[in-house]
Amino acid sequence: MRTLLIISHPEIIESGSQQYFLNSIKNQTDITIHHLEHLYPDGRIDVVKEQNLLKKHDRIIFQFPFYWYSGTPLLKKWQDEVLGEGFGYGTRRKPLAGKEFGLIMMIGVAEREYQAGGEELFTISELTKPFQAMANKLGMVYLRPFPVFQFFYMEEEEKKNTLIKYWQMLTMEKDISLATREEWLIKQLQKTAESTTETNTITFAIERIQENRDKIDELKMVLDEMFLE
Amino acid sequence: MRTLLIISHPEIIESGSQQYFLNSIKNQTDITIHHLEHLYPDGRIDVVKEQNLLKKHDRIIFQFPFYWYSGTPLLKKWQDEVLGEGFGYGTRRKPLAGKEFGLIMMIGVAEREYQAGGEELFTISELTKPFQAMANKLGMVYLRPFPVFQFFYMEEEEKKNTLIKYWQMLTMEKDISLATREEWLIKQLQKTAESTTETNTITFAIERIQENRDKIDELKMVLDEMFLE
Repeated sequence: MRTLLIISHPEIIESGSQQYFLNSIKNQTDITIHHLEHLYPDGRIDVVKEQNLLKKHDRIIFQFPFYWYSGTPLLKKWQDEVLGEGFGYGTRRKPLAGKEFGLIMMIGVAEREYQAGGEELFTISELTKPFQAMANKLGMVYLRPFPVFQFFYMEEEEKKNTLIKYWQMLTMEKDISLATREEWLIKQLQKTAESTTETNTITFAIERIQENRDKIDELKMVLDEMFLE
Repeated sequence: MRTLLIISHPEIIESGSQQYFLNSIKNQTDITIHHLEHLYPDGRIDVVKEQNLLKKHDRIIFQFPFYWYSGTPLLKKWQDEVLGEGFGYGTRRKPLAGKEFGLIMMIGVAEREYQAGGEELFTISELTKPFQAMANKLGMVYLRPFPVFQFFYMEEEEKKNTLIKYWQMLTMEKDISLATREEWLIKQLQKTAESTTETNTITFAIERIQENRDKIDELKMVLDEMFLE
């Protein structure tokens, strides 16, 4: 599976969360990192090039800061121009049909505010319906959105947990079994070990797999005992 | 009541519906027409000027083509920069609190597709929640959105009906009585008569008022008869 990670952020250098996530996926051959502001500083998008890039990938991800409950100006320009009539819609041919589409959003407000009665009034599922409707129109499979709430207030362990979920969003097959997840995680760790000096993260992740294994083993023992009685 | 009509359209000259609506509100002193692409062709927004303009108006309207279920790139840039920290949010002072906020959207697809089971999957109320959440955050009163579906397929009479609703969205006080509505409409017509040569529209609108009066008179007669029995 090949993933196209379309990042849009007006000031990405200043964003600690964006840098943290991006550093973790450098040198991954199955992920194409595609930062719009870097590629098109004057906002003139190469529509044909973008359309060809989309065709070559199986999973398309938008990554952006969730300002005013929506994407960035350049991401919207990209949507309007690249997914235009004749490519995105208005034709029987749907070049993106069957591909997966997902959102990764950096959010400054706490998760609990995104609900009825909360300060932000609506849930993330409600506020991202314009993107879900877009995936629907394009015939794409819509993935669960991945919102990262208040990255800067996170403890180190929570950051690492979030990083694992980030990798899953980018590279893990949809709805795979628990056993395959474990396999996937080990594969990811091996890849990361080759390209990084951040051994802390890897050690942490391996411990997590170990923990999960222990839990599953315990569960098995309980089941075995139940059937022996 | 003073209304600020913030229009954003990448190619407004080519949009027949935008031109039709704009022509109808020329020379109205209580509406400030504010076309972003015209004012800021290079996308560099004068944030302080915009914030001062907002403060001077009672009703703020965004008018835009509803591409990909959202606003335009420049409108999003305007939101992110003008409604930034310290003005829009992040401060106890809410300079826009109590003002009204509404949406006017030109939509190319038929209204019936905007529902569960329809091609667009969601309703306009669902898809515009990011704007509703913005109004909520700013402490503004959210008006019913005004979507204009498939303007170009409309018959002349339907276009004129839509135009009256457009004027209402821009200048009619919220939740006023039927009698006041009639008064409002007559006032609008008088204003328009002074500044336009489109007498057809005015004649049509006057006929509409007359029709409504007839209906109300009929209703009164029925009620009177009921109480006489």
